[in-house]
Amino acid sequence: MTVETFEEISPADFFYRNRDLAGFTSPSRAIFSAVRELVENSLDAADLSKIPPEIYLRLSYEGEGGPETGVYELRIEDNGSGVPARHILSAFGQVLFGSKYKLKQARGTFGLGGKMAILYGQITTHKPVYVASSTGTSKIYACKLMIDIQRNRPVILDRKISINKEQWRGTIVEFCLEGDYFRAMPKILEYLKQTALVTPYANITFVDPKGRLYKFTRATAEMPPPPKETRPHPYGVDVEAIQRLVQVTKCRNMLDFMHIQFHRVSENIAIKFLDFAGVPPSKDPKKLKPEEIVKLVQMMKRFDGFLPPDASCLSPLGEDLLRTGILKELKPEFVAVCQRKPSAYSGHPFIIETAIAYGSNIPKKNDITVYRFANRIPLLYDEASDVSVRVIRAINWRRYKVSPDMSVAFLVHICSTKVPYKTVGKEFIADRPEVAKEILNGLREVGRQLQHFLTKQEHVEKERRRLGVFSKYLPKIAKFSTELAGEKKIPDIEKLLRSVKKFGGEEEGD
Amino acid sequence: MTVETFEEISPADFFYRNRDLAGFTSPSRAIFSAVRELVENSLDAADLSKIPPEIYLRLSYEGEGGPETGVYELRIEDNGSGVPARHILSAFGQVLFGSKYKLKQARGTFGLGGKMAILYGQITTHKPVYVASSTGTSKIYACKLMIDIQRNRPVILDRKISINKEQWRGTIVEFCLEGDYFRAMPKILEYLKQTALVTPYANITFVDPKGRLYKFTRATAEMPPPPKETRPHPYGVDVEAIQRLVQVTKCRNMLDFMHIQFHRVSENIAIKFLDFAGVPPSKDPKKLKPEEIVKLVQMMKRFDGFLPPDASCLSPLGEDLLRTGILKELKPEFVAVCQRKPSAYSGHPFIIETAIAYGSNIPKKNDITVYRFANRIPLLYDEASDVSVRVIRAINWRRYKVSPDMSVAFLVHICSTKVPYKTVGKEFIADRPEVAKEILNGLREVGRQLQHFLTKQEHVEKERRRLGVFSKYLPKIAKFSTELAGEKKIPDIEKLLRSVKKFGGEEEGD
Repeated sequence: MTVETFEEISPADFFYRNRDLAGFTSPSRAIFSAVRELVENSLDAADLSKIPPEIYLRLSYEGEGGPETGVYELRIEDNGSGVPARHILSAFGQVLFGSKYKLKQARGTFGLGGKMAILYGQITTHKPVYVASSTGTSKIYACKLMIDIQRNRPVILDRKISINKEQWRGTIVEFCLEGDYFRAMPKILEYLKQTALVTPYANITFVDPKGRLYKFTRATAEMPPPPKETRPHPYGVDVEAIQRLVQVTKCRNMLDFMHIQFHRVSENIAIKFLDFAGVPPSKDPKKLKPEEIVKLVQMMKRFDGFLPPDASCLSPLGEDLLRTGILKELKPEFVAVCQRKPSAYSGHPFIIETAIAYGSNIPKKNDITVYRFANRIPLLYDEASDVSVRVIRAINWRRYKVSPDMSVAFLVHICSTKVPYKTVGKEFIADRPEVAKEILNGLREVGRQLQHFLTKQEHVEKERRRLGVFSKYLPKIAKFSTELAGEKKIPDIEKLLRSVKKFGGEEEGD
Repeated sequence: MTVETFEEISPADFFYRNRDLAGFTSPSRAIFSAVRELVENSLDAADLSKIPPEIYLRLSYEGEGGPETGVYELRIEDNGSGVPARHILSAFGQVLFGSKYKLKQARGTFGLGGKMAILYGQITTHKPVYVASSTGTSKIYACKLMIDIQRNRPVILDRKISINKEQWRGTIVEFCLEGDYFRAMPKILEYLKQTALVTPYANITFVDPKGRLYKFTRATAEMPPPPKETRPHPYGVDVEAIQRLVQVTKCRNMLDFMHIQFHRVSENIAIKFLDFAGVPPSKDPKKLKPEEIVKLVQMMKRFDGFLPPDASCLSPLGEDLLRTGILKELKPEFVAVCQRKPSAYSGHPFIIETAIAYGSNIPKKNDITVYRFANRIPLLYDEASDVSVRVIRAINWRRYKVSPDMSVAFLVHICSTKVPYKTVGKEFIADRPEVAKEILNGLREVGRQLQHFLTKQEHVEKERRRLGVFSKYLPKIAKFSTELAGEKKIPDIEKLLRSVKKFGGEEEGD
């Protein structure tokens, strides 16, 4: 019989072995994912500081790598909130350590992406990462570190504290990685363009390995209100979550516990629910027995008196900013945007924003052009599996006067405290019925607006043609009639032409 | 400014928070995934013990759960290799602890699935898991445990050692979970059926919550040779992997290091490679500097003198077993199977097996019916994103006489030491060009065989019709001719008919 060897591996080791899962599949995908993860961390840090982001990104060629790859240095600087000194080492040198394990909308949610980029750099170039950061205090903390993958701990190679003369706040990350920039280039540029579209209040500068400068300048300094942390909704919790709450709560009775620890549970609702669940309101939550906790969770799912989660914790882009972003990056002839009302799936609130852009400037992709965003992140891979694409395909667009040869782009943005991603690499959104329904309604709304526009355009076109016919023949008719009547003076046909003109500079509605 | 809170979370906590990633998305998906993960662990354990698997699976209804769910007890018993006593607690109560972190073909590869099922049971029912196991020694070890999710450690509630009178070997796992069995049922039955197809040497018994018995009986006791552990191929390693090898190697020089630690590197090839890489063969591997390791890895990727990985470590099903499985479960009129020669992607060996089955018994799915397997696991979700489906769609099947209304099923099986899954939930295979090419060639091969069969069937049909015409008119012609000629005796037309009969009981090839 074969003998099995059992062993424990660290989470860093797990993701090192399975880096495909986090989007680090190939040398081209790896360099794309590294850029993306760091840009998203920077944008999250800027949201936190409530100052419009300034992001400087640079990729420089350092030398040959494998047969089709090169070694690149990636440097990113932001003006975000900065990382507190005591957390810098772990925040950059330890997988599953981070600040994003709260119930709050954020671009990053796994506490993994940035570290995976650094880890990938390390396993391909064996060079340390350089990090400098300040939260705006009198000091700047800088260090060089590597990750001990087997132990999942940072290894410090160098550290330095300097005086922050100019009260700089932000973070700088710099490391080397092997990658196929040539193949990744179109995706990286597309990613930055779409990021600029959905973050129209950001300045993003990118210097590519050839020294070319790409500048995405902000179109507004207005930022959407930052997302807030929220409490769990009764529909979204399980036994483990209740147990953790029970451990930390200061509430002495179940009435307070329900009212204070949960999202949108008023005292009134708490009383009704506890009655429904058969739990005395005066009971001490710390004295709940395991089977009582199980029962409580089951009753929470069955009780239909809870209010749906509200979306005050969410930070959608808003129709104005979305329109600004689309006009800036896509330059369409027509754009319609729609922000749906908040909804929820299994206790997690979400908001869907949709848009449709039309015009000859819209780049034409294969069959449908769709821009997908989740918590202001552009999603560029695995489009076919995404719920948005499935919803778009299911709509009969001819009803909205949209034909397959038209230059039309769809846009779907989902904001949630928990985006239902199907992979750690954050490529696509799972098919939740509640989400699909909101996307459908949002797309129908903007579809109708486009339909109006196209109908009006059709009318204008028809009128123009009609007018063309008139203005071509009317002068001749006028001339012949004048001659036939034996008159000399041709009547003023301009006036006549104007009177048949239904659509002109000043358009009539329909 | 908002203050960020930084924290570390355990891998158990990570997967608890992100259980969607491991396939525990909804109550129906969760019960399916739990069944699947445990069946696969049992089959892996049986492979290891080289005894045809006997698996007993039972789901029993325990009571109401949430509004659309029930609480079920899941019990699985196998006759596999058993878990050594000292590892039982961690193997069932600690995420990222396991025996599958070797370079070896196995159904499970993440060391995660079984524990995720147990963890899901715990967070929905708060009940412990019961485990009993013996490796065939004189004792049976049993315990009840729960997982401390925040610390990622098992919590023992009870343990018992009993005498193993009957020299039993195997493992029993029993726990409760909340789920939607009603919705999951078709997928679970389909999963078991496909597992029986691809494991025709296994006996699988399933007792469902209504007490119905499903029995999948083995069609053969012959098992494919078990997979072997292998050494890494030079094309598949990175800096981290080399560093780990250097730490543990007993080799004193680079020549031995290359020859002994790597897959298919003869002394001859090692000499050529070290010359190419500019590394002295006598150099002590433990004295490699970081930048030398980086260079070594880059040179390994650039050197074209390495032999491709061989597949002796892989355990494909083989054409006979595959045919047996298909005949047993699908009962087709015609089946063609093909095992491709071993190939490799980024240093990982793989083998593709394909099959095509034709006949009125084949169940008809939407547009194409495809059975997908990876290391003998049926893949049932996210079909649209799978490389096999994309390859099948790209083939012009009319060339092979296959029309869309025919009852045809395709089958694709990939065996590899590293299956390129895109998700932890093991739903679908990523689009590696090497893999896609092998699938294409394998499908073409079985397609040609089906084409021959269909052509032959067409000929037979044509002949039958031709013969029908002859046998209808020949007797009449014979009769009239005889009468016309004034003869009495009608000549023997049977002989004539036989001479025009081209296809009969004994078929001619084409």
